[in-house]
Amino acid sequence: MKEIRIGLLGCGTIGAGVVKLLRRNGALLERKLGARLRLVGVAERRSEALRALGLGPELASPNPVALVERGDVDLVVELFGGYEPAGSLILKALQAGKDVVTANKALLAEHGARIFKAAARSGAGIGFEASVGGGIPIIRALRESLAGDRHRSVYGIVNGTCNSILTTMSEQGREFAEALAEAKRIGLAEANPALDIDGHDAAHKLCLLAALAFGVILTPAQVYTEGIGAVTQTDIACARELGYAIKLLAIAKDEDGAIEARVHPTMVPQNHLLASVRGAFNAINVHSEALGSTMYFGLGAGEMPTATAVVADILDLARRRLNACASGSHPLGYPTDLLRKARVKPMGDLVCECYLRFMVDDRPGVLGSIASVLGRHGISIASVIQQGRGKETTVPVIMRTHEAPERNLMRALGAIRRLKMVRTRPVFIRIEDRLQAAVGSGDGSQKS
Amino acid sequence: MKEIRIGLLGCGTIGAGVVKLLRRNGALLERKLGARLRLVGVAERRSEALRALGLGPELASPNPVALVERGDVDLVVELFGGYEPAGSLILKALQAGKDVVTANKALLAEHGARIFKAAARSGAGIGFEASVGGGIPIIRALRESLAGDRHRSVYGIVNGTCNSILTTMSEQGREFAEALAEAKRIGLAEANPALDIDGHDAAHKLCLLAALAFGVILTPAQVYTEGIGAVTQTDIACARELGYAIKLLAIAKDEDGAIEARVHPTMVPQNHLLASVRGAFNAINVHSEALGSTMYFGLGAGEMPTATAVVADILDLARRRLNACASGSHPLGYPTDLLRKARVKPMGDLVCECYLRFMVDDRPGVLGSIASVLGRHGISIASVIQQGRGKETTVPVIMRTHEAPERNLMRALGAIRRLKMVRTRPVFIRIEDRLQAAVGSGDGSQKS
Repeated sequence: MKEIRIGLLGCGTIGAGVVKLLRRNGALLERKLGARLRLVGVAERRSEALRALGLGPELASPNPVALVERGDVDLVVELFGGYEPAGSLILKALQAGKDVVTANKALLAEHGARIFKAAARSGAGIGFEASVGGGIPIIRALRESLAGDRHRSVYGIVNGTCNSILTTMSEQGREFAEALAEAKRIGLAEANPALDIDGHDAAHKLCLLAALAFGVILTPAQVYTEGIGAVTQTDIACARELGYAIKLLAIAKDEDGAIEARVHPTMVPQNHLLASVRGAFNAINVHSEALGSTMYFGLGAGEMPTATAVVADILDLARRRLNACASGSHPLGYPTDLLRKARVKPMGDLVCECYLRFMVDDRPGVLGSIASVLGRHGISIASVIQQGRGKETTVPVIMRTHEAPERNLMRALGAIRRLKMVRTRPVFIRIEDRLQAAVGSGDGSQKS
Repeated sequence: MKEIRIGLLGCGTIGAGVVKLLRRNGALLERKLGARLRLVGVAERRSEALRALGLGPELASPNPVALVERGDVDLVVELFGGYEPAGSLILKALQAGKDVVTANKALLAEHGARIFKAAARSGAGIGFEASVGGGIPIIRALRESLAGDRHRSVYGIVNGTCNSILTTMSEQGREFAEALAEAKRIGLAEANPALDIDGHDAAHKLCLLAALAFGVILTPAQVYTEGIGAVTQTDIACARELGYAIKLLAIAKDEDGAIEARVHPTMVPQNHLLASVRGAFNAINVHSEALGSTMYFGLGAGEMPTATAVVADILDLARRRLNACASGSHPLGYPTDLLRKARVKPMGDLVCECYLRFMVDDRPGVLGSIASVLGRHGISIASVIQQGRGKETTVPVIMRTHEAPERNLMRALGAIRRLKMVRTRPVFIRIEDRLQAAVGSGDGSQKS
């Protein structure tokens, strides 16, 4: 029986999931493929990781470069994460004509152009379904299933750690620090959680989603990125009162060639599907010209869900190799030489409704002063909440604005900050009221 | 530039959508593929259909057999629907080594085994993404993206006509006949709507979903099928009072090799995502061993959404042909000789909670009599609603049962029907309280 020989770089959580899944479903996969998937080497410093999985010492390949260069390796699964040595190893594998499967969104978001070009040149394949949305098949959906259509926007909840923390905050009334500690305790946040909670992981994933949806090269530096660290119970409670939930959304839109790309806490209507996505679940919405909205939900992280995406890519590339296909679909659905560099719309041009919270002295005239500044900058107020006055000398003033350019809002907030009666930096959270949703809005009647 | 030459069988709603999409996105598709997709012939009796699309008379191919046999046709798009001549034409195309794209779920559900075998024999490809869920990429998801996992259940809302009618009934308080008339008026139901409202279309789709998910050959005759014609306002109102919405669900489960396959009106909890799927939208949930639940939402029908699925399949098969792949993935993800015939669990073995409604004489003792019969058959009652007595001599008694084998329930209902005080055939609707959901339940924490 034919074999596809796999070299595994990294045997942490996901790597262990891949080993387990290949073993557990080995017979099924062999039948589906008509060939055997055989693990021939694992590069992992912690030798106990191999033992824990029952892998013999003959599989240990302490030198990852040597493993990638071995003549009997057909396919390399890169699960080291990070930029180096992962990037060099992937390039080496592709240049040697070996197929590569990776979950490394940071690397692909930052250096994808070079890596995809290397794949195109050598004719090797690269699969990265596991890099966005864990086991949710969003990469293949955008690259193949929706390939005949044009896409206007892709957005959603793509970081399970942030969504878990926001869910805990919202449902249990805890503050951010406490919810983060809880997430660490149950293994949903890493010891150093900055990549997740500061929004960078979501921005990396957004770069890949935008590339697939719009055929552009978008780099993390081009994505406006704001994390969830500043979200407070006060804001969650006020959002609820206004009919919203706070979620960390990654949003990309193609507006006649100008790309909008941003990651930030967002107020979404409570009756929108995204508002009911809890815990570590992810949800991604794609809005397309002919198809309208489609949505994809599932577990966006975790050992086994992510491993299923890796194994699906292995199967795909193995099949291609066994069938001697000249080449499969382009990794991003577009020939790499046709990808254009993203022209990104400045955040100042963004037109958005906003939630604002000011901590102010509790005395008459404050609301008037704030409203005047906003008015001078062309921002009109949709509603105001002034909470019952207690013994505090500083009280919150909460406002919801109508749509206005973010540039104006930033100027107004700068001026308001300078008012004497305003005691802390104003809080503002963007509201997305008009997100296209696949369900729960509209009746699905079609225009052609 | 290379070309893939397409013969189109049928130019109704979806065919027109395909022509429009190939034209509108022609340049984009050409860039993605590195080849041209050229329509070379259209078999359509209504010549005005071609004129309406601006297609020249040279494309008219009155004889579909001749079109399929033409030497310059690489790929046949079958959109005639129905069993014949569609089936023979598809077989002829495959035997001649031409790729086929079809949206014909009825044909594939009934005769798929033969058709997929013909494709396997000749090495030609067959794409049928458009046959289930319109533009929702559920076929490719099951066949490729989730291919490394084992699936326990697949279920959802797969008929937009029924869902539109149930939405209208639920939101506007109209009875079935009126809601059906409205659906016909706005083009969401066909002149002869039996295939949709009797549940057969959903059963056809379920056969394909089960084949992909479990690797079985399941035929429509094996699917327990019940339509929505008997759903009344009374039941919708009572369901709401109990916390449920009524949806037509298609449900398939693999229980250690025994397949459960059924289509029927179902009460789903109001806070379950499926309850909020409105109008012509479809939603499909897949529950898998390693991945857990994933859900897929979008427009399940309509000219352009369905056309996007057809064009995605065209691109896929064209790419394979251009790259001279020996063969792609198996149409069902499994080599056809490994598909096993489904061993279907009898409905009597189904264990389910139920909603029951009896129209009874308004006099004492009735509830006791009914409850006694249920008790004798081992069915315990979870709750009872007896509505305020008015001037009617016949009143409804509504019950929710605990889980019980359907066999017992059927026997009990037969006995109850024979009670003198029970005036009409008892109504029963199955309740699904434990549907796995990707969101809105659980916290997404993982077991490996």
